Amino acid sequence: MSIKVVLGIDIGGTNTVFGLIDKEGKDYLVDSIPTNGNLPPDDLFKRLFIRIDELIRQAEIDFEIMGIGIGAPNANYFKKTIEYPPNLSWGYVELEEFIRKFYTQPFAVTNDANAAALGEMHYGVAKGLKDFIVITLGTGLGSGIVVNGNLVYGHDGFAGEIGHTVVFPDGRECGCGKKGCLETYVSASGIKRTVFELLSRYNYDSRFRRLSFEEFDAKMITQAALEGDKIALKAFDFTAKVLGMKLADAVAHTSPEAIILFGGLANAGELITTPTKKYMEEYLFHVFKNKVKILKSELNEGKSAVLGAAALIWHELLNK
Amino acid sequence: MSIKVVLGIDIGGTNTVFGLIDKEGKDYLVDSIPTNGNLPPDDLFKRLFIRIDELIRQAEIDFEIMGIGIGAPNANYFKKTIEYPPNLSWGYVELEEFIRKFYTQPFAVTNDANAAALGEMHYGVAKGLKDFIVITLGTGLGSGIVVNGNLVYGHDGFAGEIGHTVVFPDGRECGCGKKGCLETYVSASGIKRTVFELLSRYNYDSRFRRLSFEEFDAKMITQAALEGDKIALKAFDFTAKVLGMKLADAVAHTSPEAIILFGGLANAGELITTPTKKYMEEYLFHVFKNKVKILKSELNEGKSAVLGAAALIWHELLNK
Repeated sequence: MSIKVVLGIDIGGTNTVFGLIDKEGKDYLVDSIPTNGNLPPDDLFKRLFIRIDELIRQAEIDFEIMGIGIGAPNANYFKKTIEYPPNLSWGYVELEEFIRKFYTQPFAVTNDANAAALGEMHYGVAKGLKDFIVITLGTGLGSGIVVNGNLVYGHDGFAGEIGHTVVFPDGRECGCGKKGCLETYVSASGIKRTVFELLSRYNYDSRFRRLSFEEFDAKMITQAALEGDKIALKAFDFTAKVLGMKLADAVAHTSPEAIILFGGLANAGELITTPTKKYMEEYLFHVFKNKVKILKSELNEGKSAVLGAAALIWHELLNK
Repeated sequence: MSIKVVLGIDIGGTNTVFGLIDKEGKDYLVDSIPTNGNLPPDDLFKRLFIRIDELIRQAEIDFEIMGIGIGAPNANYFKKTIEYPPNLSWGYVELEEFIRKFYTQPFAVTNDANAAALGEMHYGVAKGLKDFIVITLGTGLGSGIVVNGNLVYGHDGFAGEIGHTVVFPDGRECGCGKKGCLETYVSASGIKRTVFELLSRYNYDSRFRRLSFEEFDAKMITQAALEGDKIALKAFDFTAKVLGMKLADAVAHTSPEAIILFGGLANAGELITTPTKKYMEEYLFHVFKNKVKILKSELNEGKSAVLGAAALIWHELLNK
């Protein structure tokens, strides 16, 4: 008997990860290839689909591919497009053409944070929840909002960009062209900027006084905080304060049962979750106080994006 | 033949307005009685239902009441409760008991801003829209968020409190106990506070220099702005800037097609809609720019709350 699976694909700036995922979230043949974002998208999809074919043949398992789910930056669910993704020289890409050369099954695409939200709903800590928000803390800050059991795509398919809400109207320059966006404070690069700001404000000794901006990363800030570096500790406190404040705003919009932190900075665990919860409670409107959980994703980081991409199709198949 | 109608009830701090609304939004027997919020809720509902009975008998029209829709402050859709409404001494009210003494039909309750959103969807400028936000600008700022054709109630039934998102973390004291909430800037009372702040900052002559805080209202600020009073004009500009900024945040959450301004300050028309749109565009994340309309509600203000309350039941009956 064949195993029914969805082909999940996560297109990243450097690598594209893919795998076959069954309804229960069991994964098969997870692998990755370089994205080569400087070449046209045709190149990636050709290599990708040929590689999957090879892997399936070698595995000698009879898979039935029910559909293809894709997570990609700047992806539009309604139009099935990827639009001017940062770090890839693709411009405006209609996916139909590339998929249909190899597959006739249904396919769907959304951005990586939305895919992560679906992954959490079907296979992660959001199982059974109908109203929640996933915040992905990578180089930037992505978000996927689920309302009443469905992802919010919005009128144009681009809903869920909490990373680009405004914290300080004349604050830090954001890669998006605006100023003071949440992701300039709360993200791997945001917390680095905070360390530098704190070094300028305080006189505490810190290991970061001996490093240039390009010599350290968010992981080193986590390590330093765990070892009691005052600047690193203050950086986490400030990051949590800003995140808590903006999560309180997000709660005022859709009143979720839980907010799930995923990736990068979320790996700092209680260093980020505990103060974020504390500050969120401070800023919450009274009717929402003591109701909203802050959880850390428990999905395997290497596979979660592929799980989420596959969930995009499983979610549709199971809700028919 | 009987006319199928829903009994719409809008419970306000001073008066409770009610009426019978048919599927197309035609209203019958709209009337109001004092809420008498210092007495127990039993008193209001008894007077209300007796009065409706009288009116129906006098009208000599054969109405079939399909259900009862109620808009009220701090109302919870899931629990069918009104919880510690400001300006009413009711505490925690379970509505079932009061309704069931008179009616066996389905009933539903939500807050006034959510009801306004349903009213706009069924009978107003949001007809045909699936993703939009209604902002009610009264003494405070209420909001109702519609995603994919349904009101967002959230996990606890209290979603849509954009008025209590934070503009300035250490800003103006809000009635809710927090600081810097949107409604302390953008509302009838918010713009009055802004006039006072501007009088302290600038030396322009203004009619408001000759009035105490309690001697003027938002309507007078609108009138003064139309007549060129510099402080009033600046007050509208600042109000629109804050509103535009927070609407850009709201768009980043649910990506609506339109945002509809309703009541009080919205009656200032282009004085508020034009600069709000301009500032919102400035703060919007690039994928949302030039996509979101700012509209003014066109519903009759005296009847809109009752229309919205009735739409709560019609929405459920028509979506079955």
